[in-house]
Amino acid sequence: MGEAATIAGYDYGRDRIPRSPVSLTDLQQILETVDFTDTDRRYLTMAGDVLADQAEQMVDAWRARIGAQPHLARWFFDPNGHPNERYKAAVKPRFVQWVLDTCRRPYDQAWLDYQDEIGRRHTPEKKNVTDEVSGPPVVPHRYLIAFAAVIITTARGFLAAKGHSTDDVDGMSTAWCKAVLLTLALWSRPYARDGLW
Amino acid sequence: MGEAATIAGYDYGRDRIPRSPVSLTDLQQILETVDFTDTDRRYLTMAGDVLADQAEQMVDAWRARIGAQPHLARWFFDPNGHPNERYKAAVKPRFVQWVLDTCRRPYDQAWLDYQDEIGRRHTPEKKNVTDEVSGPPVVPHRYLIAFAAVIITTARGFLAAKGHSTDDVDGMSTAWCKAVLLTLALWSRPYARDGLW
Repeated sequence: MGEAATIAGYDYGRDRIPRSPVSLTDLQQILETVDFTDTDRRYLTMAGDVLADQAEQMVDAWRARIGAQPHLARWFFDPNGHPNERYKAAVKPRFVQWVLDTCRRPYDQAWLDYQDEIGRRHTPEKKNVTDEVSGPPVVPHRYLIAFAAVIITTARGFLAAKGHSTDDVDGMSTAWCKAVLLTLALWSRPYARDGLW
Repeated sequence: MGEAATIAGYDYGRDRIPRSPVSLTDLQQILETVDFTDTDRRYLTMAGDVLADQAEQMVDAWRARIGAQPHLARWFFDPNGHPNERYKAAVKPRFVQWVLDTCRRPYDQAWLDYQDEIGRRHTPEKKNVTDEVSGPPVVPHRYLIAFAAVIITTARGFLAAKGHSTDDVDGMSTAWCKAVLLTLALWSRPYARDGLW
């Protein structure tokens, strides 16, 4: 992950982001809830290899869908009501890196801290700050959750693109689904009312 | 869905539940966000036929997992710290019916109203009220999101149990994933801070 160090705003493992208020015990319980197993970890590693040279293409495909839906695109507009291309360009390499990190990083304290940071960067607490842009203060929670369906269901085609067996594609798809919902559970924390997360 | 009328607390389409604050326009935008298509609707109908005599078994399998994880099971305990069997028994037929409704009901105003009702029944606004039980006031949001991974990934085995082609099982699985995340987006509304949903 050497190239990742050069991505602006990619603060994975850096002291400048705070420790997540979610404990490692909480994380363990969420991992159990999604039924994340050693088999899933192995399949995620395989998925990381399969997706390494496709991650940018995946992100391009997802962002094309976002850009085509006004109710999704507007959260990345500038105050004049136009797509903020600088903002979009700044976010993209982090989105690509997220695909790879989800597959390859151990789910430890550094990973947990960065997931909370990503969650906050979608809410008024931190949105627009990292890239110093002016835009709407939030990506609404309903769209974050709903778009996970696209992140999950479109992955299968990319996971099948390298000639793996159906069993392997099933295994990678299942592990990916669990990892995305684990991530979504963590990103949801700053959206939730006190005591309900 | 004639039997559904006899399920206690199953208030689908009934005047006793309020209109959802989510508009049909909002719903349409969430449907677009999950990329719900006519093909998905056809596959959900197929899934409804495949799952009709398996839905209770699915719910039993999901609840066995919940019961085996103390951090999940405790939200259904009574004040003495024991599983509330009456509560669990009351919820079960509604959970089974949810599987069938997700596959078979049109996503219209009545469906929207009942999804909001289900969301509220997981939060302090309505939890425990329907079944007149005493228990914790919420099912934490993180577990609702994380357990969706189990609802999604375990469905494939049930969808494949009736000898359909791989293409049909893929199509039903994809449609089911989209429907579950659509539902989860709607259920998340009462959990979210003002203005962030």
